[in-house]
Amino acid sequence: MSKVSFPALSRVAVCGGTHGNELSGVYLVREYLRRKHNQRNAQESFTLMMVMSNPRAVQQCRRYTETDLNRCFTRATLRTATSFKRESRRLISTPISDKTPYEIVRSQELNGLLGPKGSPEAMDLVCDLHNTTANMGLCFISFSDSDWICLHIYRHLQRELATIPVRYIHFDTPKNEAYSLESVGKHGFAMEIGPQPHGSVRSNIFVAIQEGVEQMLEWIHLFNSGTQFEGGSVEVFTLVKNIDYPRDPETRAITAAIHPDLQDRDFCLLHPGDPLFLSFSGETLRYKGKEPLYPFFVNECAYYEKGIALSLARRRRVVIPSIQCDRDR
Amino acid sequence: MSKVSFPALSRVAVCGGTHGNELSGVYLVREYLRRKHNQRNAQESFTLMMVMSNPRAVQQCRRYTETDLNRCFTRATLRTATSFKRESRRLISTPISDKTPYEIVRSQELNGLLGPKGSPEAMDLVCDLHNTTANMGLCFISFSDSDWICLHIYRHLQRELATIPVRYIHFDTPKNEAYSLESVGKHGFAMEIGPQPHGSVRSNIFVAIQEGVEQMLEWIHLFNSGTQFEGGSVEVFTLVKNIDYPRDPETRAITAAIHPDLQDRDFCLLHPGDPLFLSFSGETLRYKGKEPLYPFFVNECAYYEKGIALSLARRRRVVIPSIQCDRDR
Repeated sequence: MSKVSFPALSRVAVCGGTHGNELSGVYLVREYLRRKHNQRNAQESFTLMMVMSNPRAVQQCRRYTETDLNRCFTRATLRTATSFKRESRRLISTPISDKTPYEIVRSQELNGLLGPKGSPEAMDLVCDLHNTTANMGLCFISFSDSDWICLHIYRHLQRELATIPVRYIHFDTPKNEAYSLESVGKHGFAMEIGPQPHGSVRSNIFVAIQEGVEQMLEWIHLFNSGTQFEGGSVEVFTLVKNIDYPRDPETRAITAAIHPDLQDRDFCLLHPGDPLFLSFSGETLRYKGKEPLYPFFVNECAYYEKGIALSLARRRRVVIPSIQCDRDR
Repeated sequence: MSKVSFPALSRVAVCGGTHGNELSGVYLVREYLRRKHNQRNAQESFTLMMVMSNPRAVQQCRRYTETDLNRCFTRATLRTATSFKRESRRLISTPISDKTPYEIVRSQELNGLLGPKGSPEAMDLVCDLHNTTANMGLCFISFSDSDWICLHIYRHLQRELATIPVRYIHFDTPKNEAYSLESVGKHGFAMEIGPQPHGSVRSNIFVAIQEGVEQMLEWIHLFNSGTQFEGGSVEVFTLVKNIDYPRDPETRAITAAIHPDLQDRDFCLLHPGDPLFLSFSGETLRYKGKEPLYPFFVNECAYYEKGIALSLARRRRVVIPSIQCDRDR
């Protein structure tokens, strides 16, 4: 594959607190703001904006106050929210109330600040910081498996971070349906890190995400300065499907938990017949799929309400080209 | 020490969901109710009541809805809540609103159901199930270090549970000031188990708490049936003090997390000079106490708001007498 050139990444945003109880990003953003990062980065080759995405949820230490902010950035919702504000309340699917849900209002503000999504004015790169209770290490999550910028940053972190495994998860969804905050940027990914209980900070996880962000900024500076990054191939996990907990058909309460043999074994190949759940009455339920797949988001606390006990991915290698900044553009 | 005799434990309550996002107890209580435990225990030597303590918080999967239910059972609050309902809103220290806080109302209901606290009608034993994000294994938490019933049950579980360490934490507080649900019973303790993120269920933790409750019920049945339990000595951890996170003097936001060397090392002796916190700017803060003490509740997620980063205890041995049920009383 020949070399691909991109314009410099001149405007970069790092966001925390998109989910208000995922505290690594909350405290990292606060720490950068305290250090007045803008002074430092004035000497760098790009401007860096640190964003506290959902300050009201952060203040309450909850994932969100009314609706999940990180599901509000589809083109449809961004358009609908505008219509909502202008005209009619019937256009959005949130419950009718006297007020627009806070997160819908906030998604508009963030789209103005970091976007507008899909426009030439959008941030060159948006990195959105998240935590998971699953034992996933540090994961890039992206709606693209051909964003060479993101994939090169991923490879850089994989090489540089010594204390934590780094992986890349690809959600194979059309860009228009991409629902999360980082999709507002020209390039973007979520940086998901765990395990950490929501509402708490673990030092090892904080240090790892801090190092991840620093290494990303270092890569951007190198890229903007003209460094050529060689091509190669990287490992990507593409989401195949989600599996819900067994539930009581009437109450919808879960009737089993992740099996001890699967708990904390994210990215360890799950074979047909392997234990999946252990019911509260002691019965082992097994994986009935026909294809071995890689589990992730195993027992993510925030996904009980979304009907996801774990996700399953296919692993493959993606060839990436050499890239270099086109400094004349 | 000579033998001590007690009346039979005829009425026993096991409570879950006192904190609505501590799910081991929530799902264990549901599972017992599903199995119609009362039929089974009709053949036993005691009646067993399973209680979902805070159903509204369980429904919302939050610790509490308005105020922490498990701080509402002091005699003063139970009295005040009654006054509150009858007369004045100024008597309680919760924010003034049009409604009595739900948890205050609920503490009254529970005191009626399981108590009244300090009365002859109170449950013989109340066991309240809790989870912690700290790596504490299974802990009894009690306001007494001389409740021989609780200490004998503790010793029984320590002997019988193979997969998880069992310890006894003593809060040296006058009985009148005991604030938690289990203090409503004639005998009572909290069964605290972790680590588990709040809002999630881990199978290993569920299996351990289930086994803990089963072994407790087994002990009660043996006791009521006339078995004599020999005296001896047991290990007890008595709370000495709590330590808060370092905080920004203006915003009160925490400025450090538990040090990686201390994280997950509950009940491992902490010596003067040992690392306590790692600040977000990378500085190690050390333990400045003069006495080596045992840390517990290290980085318990729900205690950020209470100003507790960890608790410290002194370890000692308590001599317990032989006990037997006085079946004539």
